[in-house]
Amino acid sequence: MSRSDLTKMTKVEVVVTGAEAPAVRDLLQASGARGFTSLSGVSGLGHDGYHQGRLLFNDQATLELIISVVPDEHADALIGGLRRLLENASGVMFVTDTYVSRPEHSA
Amino acid sequence: MSRSDLTKMTKVEVVVTGAEAPAVRDLLQASGARGFTSLSGVSGLGHDGYHQGRLLFNDQATLELIISVVPDEHADALIGGLRRLLENASGVMFVTDTYVSRPEHSA
Amino acid sequence: MSRSDLTKMTKVEVVVTGAEAPAVRDLLQASGARGFTSLSGVSGLGHDGYHQGRLLFNDQATLELIISVVPDEHADALIGGLRRLLENASGVMFVTDTYVSRPEHSA
Repeated sequence: MSRSDLTKMTKVEVVVTGAEAPAVRDLLQASGARGFTSLSGVSGLGHDGYHQGRLLFNDQATLELIISVVPDEHADALIGGLRRLLENASGVMFVTDTYVSRPEHSA
Repeated sequence: MSRSDLTKMTKVEVVVTGAEAPAVRDLLQASGARGFTSLSGVSGLGHDGYHQGRLLFNDQATLELIISVVPDEHADALIGGLRRLLENASGVMFVTDTYVSRPEHSA
Repeated sequence: MSRSDLTKMTKVEVVVTGAEAPAVRDLLQASGARGFTSLSGVSGLGHDGYHQGRLLFNDQATLELIISVVPDEHADALIGGLRRLLENASGVMFVTDTYVSRPEHSA
């Protein structure tokens, strides 16, 4: 079973405006995330907390999707930090269980 | 446990051509989704239902990835509508359990 | 319950450089994946195995995110092949359970 060779981790996906993206990356690094993947070409509208009522359903903003994984035992601190960030900013966060490759060579 | 402060929801990811994207957004809005995230720069080929045999494995089409979350109790209606749409169109749908931030302030 | 009309599958998301992307697609096709979705506009840094120490946390590389689903019984072979690829290359892999639409008409 190859999946048993993988490491169960917590995957955190955050959609924020470009203005908030550096704060998200800082939180990731402070929480011990080993890295992140960032996607541009993202637009979105209307999600809970998105745009804080500034946009109607048909308005769109240019956003960034930031994907990272953290060990389960570090997830709570990261999620808490991101929730506080999102309370004062536009954005949404998805948290999902995932299994991640961990090559044996040091990164 | 910060994850207990999050809301368990059903994450729906749909990959469709630009022609089908407005119909997907209409279904999302009709199903009570509070918003969505859309990614451009997407290509794909060959998935079950993709392109309905019009493309070979090495052909690619420009597509859109639309991500949304709905409350679990609304997921069935949305999934049913998307399945009917995908029966008559190119595309694929992924449905995953996720946990979502819900800032207390109204959106 | 519409989700019972969907098919439980293993979703594999791989972030690699453009140089490795063709090898990933070959592995997908050899593992019986019916297709894939590819996203451009991806950057990333520092994930386990990313860049093999060539980049500092603030360096970024242009990457590709490749998403595919395979039947659970084929997942191990694919995951094993991707792990071997990632041991000798930059990149990261996420493996997640998902439910997928399967239109009845042949693809």
